[in-house]
Amino acid sequence: MAGGLFLDLYELTMAYSYFRRGMNQTATFAYFVRSPVPNRRFLLFAGLDPLLEALPNFTFSEEDLAYLHSLRLFDEEFLSFLGEFRFTGEIWAMEEGTICFPGEPLLLVTAPRIQAQLLETLVLNILNYETLVASKAARILLAAGPEAVVVDFSPRRDHGMEASIHAARASFLAGFHGTSNVLAGKLYGIPVVGTMAHSYVLSFPDEISAFRAFAEDHPSPVLLIDTYDPLTGALHAARVAQEMREKGKRIVAVRLDSGDLAGLSREVRRILDEAGLPEVQIFVSGDLDEYRILEFRKKGGIAWGYGVGTRLGVSWDLPALGGVYKLVEDEKGPRMKTSPGKISLPGRAQVWRRENFRDLVALQEESSEGRPLLRQVMAGGKRLIPPLDLAQRREEVRKALFSLPPELADLSPDEAPSYPVEYSPGLRALVSARR
Amino acid sequence: MAGGLFLDLYELTMAYSYFRRGMNQTATFAYFVRSPVPNRRFLLFAGLDPLLEALPNFTFSEEDLAYLHSLRLFDEEFLSFLGEFRFTGEIWAMEEGTICFPGEPLLLVTAPRIQAQLLETLVLNILNYETLVASKAARILLAAGPEAVVVDFSPRRDHGMEASIHAARASFLAGFHGTSNVLAGKLYGIPVVGTMAHSYVLSFPDEISAFRAFAEDHPSPVLLIDTYDPLTGALHAARVAQEMREKGKRIVAVRLDSGDLAGLSREVRRILDEAGLPEVQIFVSGDLDEYRILEFRKKGGIAWGYGVGTRLGVSWDLPALGGVYKLVEDEKGPRMKTSPGKISLPGRAQVWRRENFRDLVALQEESSEGRPLLRQVMAGGKRLIPPLDLAQRREEVRKALFSLPPELADLSPDEAPSYPVEYSPGLRALVSARR
Repeated sequence: MAGGLFLDLYELTMAYSYFRRGMNQTATFAYFVRSPVPNRRFLLFAGLDPLLEALPNFTFSEEDLAYLHSLRLFDEEFLSFLGEFRFTGEIWAMEEGTICFPGEPLLLVTAPRIQAQLLETLVLNILNYETLVASKAARILLAAGPEAVVVDFSPRRDHGMEASIHAARASFLAGFHGTSNVLAGKLYGIPVVGTMAHSYVLSFPDEISAFRAFAEDHPSPVLLIDTYDPLTGALHAARVAQEMREKGKRIVAVRLDSGDLAGLSREVRRILDEAGLPEVQIFVSGDLDEYRILEFRKKGGIAWGYGVGTRLGVSWDLPALGGVYKLVEDEKGPRMKTSPGKISLPGRAQVWRRENFRDLVALQEESSEGRPLLRQVMAGGKRLIPPLDLAQRREEVRKALFSLPPELADLSPDEAPSYPVEYSPGLRALVSARR
Repeated sequence: MAGGLFLDLYELTMAYSYFRRGMNQTATFAYFVRSPVPNRRFLLFAGLDPLLEALPNFTFSEEDLAYLHSLRLFDEEFLSFLGEFRFTGEIWAMEEGTICFPGEPLLLVTAPRIQAQLLETLVLNILNYETLVASKAARILLAAGPEAVVVDFSPRRDHGMEASIHAARASFLAGFHGTSNVLAGKLYGIPVVGTMAHSYVLSFPDEISAFRAFAEDHPSPVLLIDTYDPLTGALHAARVAQEMREKGKRIVAVRLDSGDLAGLSREVRRILDEAGLPEVQIFVSGDLDEYRILEFRKKGGIAWGYGVGTRLGVSWDLPALGGVYKLVEDEKGPRMKTSPGKISLPGRAQVWRRENFRDLVALQEESSEGRPLLRQVMAGGKRLIPPLDLAQRREEVRKALFSLPPELADLSPDEAPSYPVEYSPGLRALVSARR
């Protein structure tokens, strides 16, 4: 659905002015997140592949141009120019799934000024949301622990269908095990998972008939036990699990979706164990997030897996990421805004990852110990990297997450976390010279 | 992008079970919002037209079926059935822009059980988000007052491009004056608006050159004055406005985007007035929402208009709406889930709007004084109503909003508002019989 019209009008009015004045020399814009970000001791960068895929479609159709003409803001010459628009610039970016911080550039776009400017809305829209969800998913995984199965159940509360696709992708990248979102499963090869709804149980004369039917019709059934009373539901599920076992078939789990999840999970575990069904697992859901999962575990809740929906897909405790896209350099050199409280990072930068995440942001001409995190991913408008292997990258990201130092893995609320980001002498000299 | 694959996997596994068992008699599902919704004394229903437009595309392509086949969950007969899938049911719904409440049905779907079930994710995804944004927009308008110009600046922080289109549409429906979102402007005829970014100002040797250039290149310029220092920026804007006036052209407004907006706006007003420019207006932006606009006005801030972005598009203080889609009736009669704390509305209902918003939810066979809010919008899978005239409906919605009774228009935070919704004797009898 992209196309060049997905932008804020001011991108076009500015571009028009640049066009009329021949101001189209090379400029660099940086995407970064302003510091601090409440409740986020780190971010997980995501959305690069979707952005690189959207760029070739960022063009203006005849219909688009006719619409722009109707606004009476632009002359024919500019509209013809837009008709020819193709992104031909270069992009440097962190790898998706990189643990990163506010205050460091995550992506740089270098292109003729008009091109770089016109991309602003697209870059911000995609990267802000995918990074937001990936970062939330990472926290949820840390709360659930490396043994738990954690899946995305967010489509019904996400902000549109496309948001759901991004949410499934970003949470899988972070290390989730699957999604309920069938379209995302098809598009990205993410494992799709699902249980049953209360309406299914209500569609049968009684709960046990519903359980029997579902167990017969599904190869790996999970039974939702709280339509009427969850403990009676557990007894019914146990009975059906025993019947199925005789037929050589296993009930994978029972699902709790309401009530005192921790207390109920212990009682359900006891019921299942007493029925000789230690292999039937417990799956919990219902407005979960990292805080509630930690509380559930602290209260002795027993769960093999968690279904996380609303609070993942909208990043409940931080529903938007304040990522910005700022001019940092043009033909006249490094650039920055100086208004109080909103400081930019001037110049083309590199981020060096040193031991224990003590990142150094430096100018590209400076060097440092550590590993450079920004790599060139596009040149002359052509992508230089293959499509991301999401499943493989997920393994690496999980490993990185579960070996984070404790100060970064800490999930307790914090209105203004500080980040282990330092700035190079060259960068600091630029900033103080401009103040 | 819709297509039939936009659903949670469990819709398909349940549908498969119904299919195998021949359980496909007529059923009714209701969409409603569970009560209470924090900080929302009313909701503004939105998203019906986008839903009705998506329904004809809710089909399964060959490629979709091949993907489903690969999951090894379904047999060929069921996949053939999905290949023929078309929605043929009926829908009753409130008119978009209707002021409504949690606890009352906003939409009813009656169709063969499998059809009605498969729509769940789509219905929830679209209605939850559009109603969420429209309701937030309504509150922002109430805070800004009927004289202010209020526009949507949310695309860069919305959850994907599609979310931005919904946000622009829903906020315009609620009464906003326009959006920065050019694609939404084209799709829905919403007026598009825009100013300039800091990067524009930084692209010129100094601020006043940037203002002069923009004023020459734009028919109705708004100048962003806080790239360096907002009061100096106001002086520069005043100078350019005076120069432009001599050329017979007007600077529409100056824009403040950071700092103490209320205090700065008063000083900027004084600067403009002293320069003999009472016609140059002040436009403010920067993480605004209803709470901040009320505070701005209380502190004596002066603004002709507000640009509202992040906190509108993600509904910052309530980032998801807990709308649900529940089986309420099937061939065996009214249905409801009885698990503690999560009560459904059994039976096919009508909502009667009585004086002063004292709504009555009743069974369809009951009658009441007042105006019925649910009307049939689709029969036999065909829509019965014309596409919404968004601009005309917006006028009606604005009128309704600005004449709300004070208890509904109250914007103060409230974790658990109560709603003026009553239930008919017939409905109450059904609920108590099932408890």
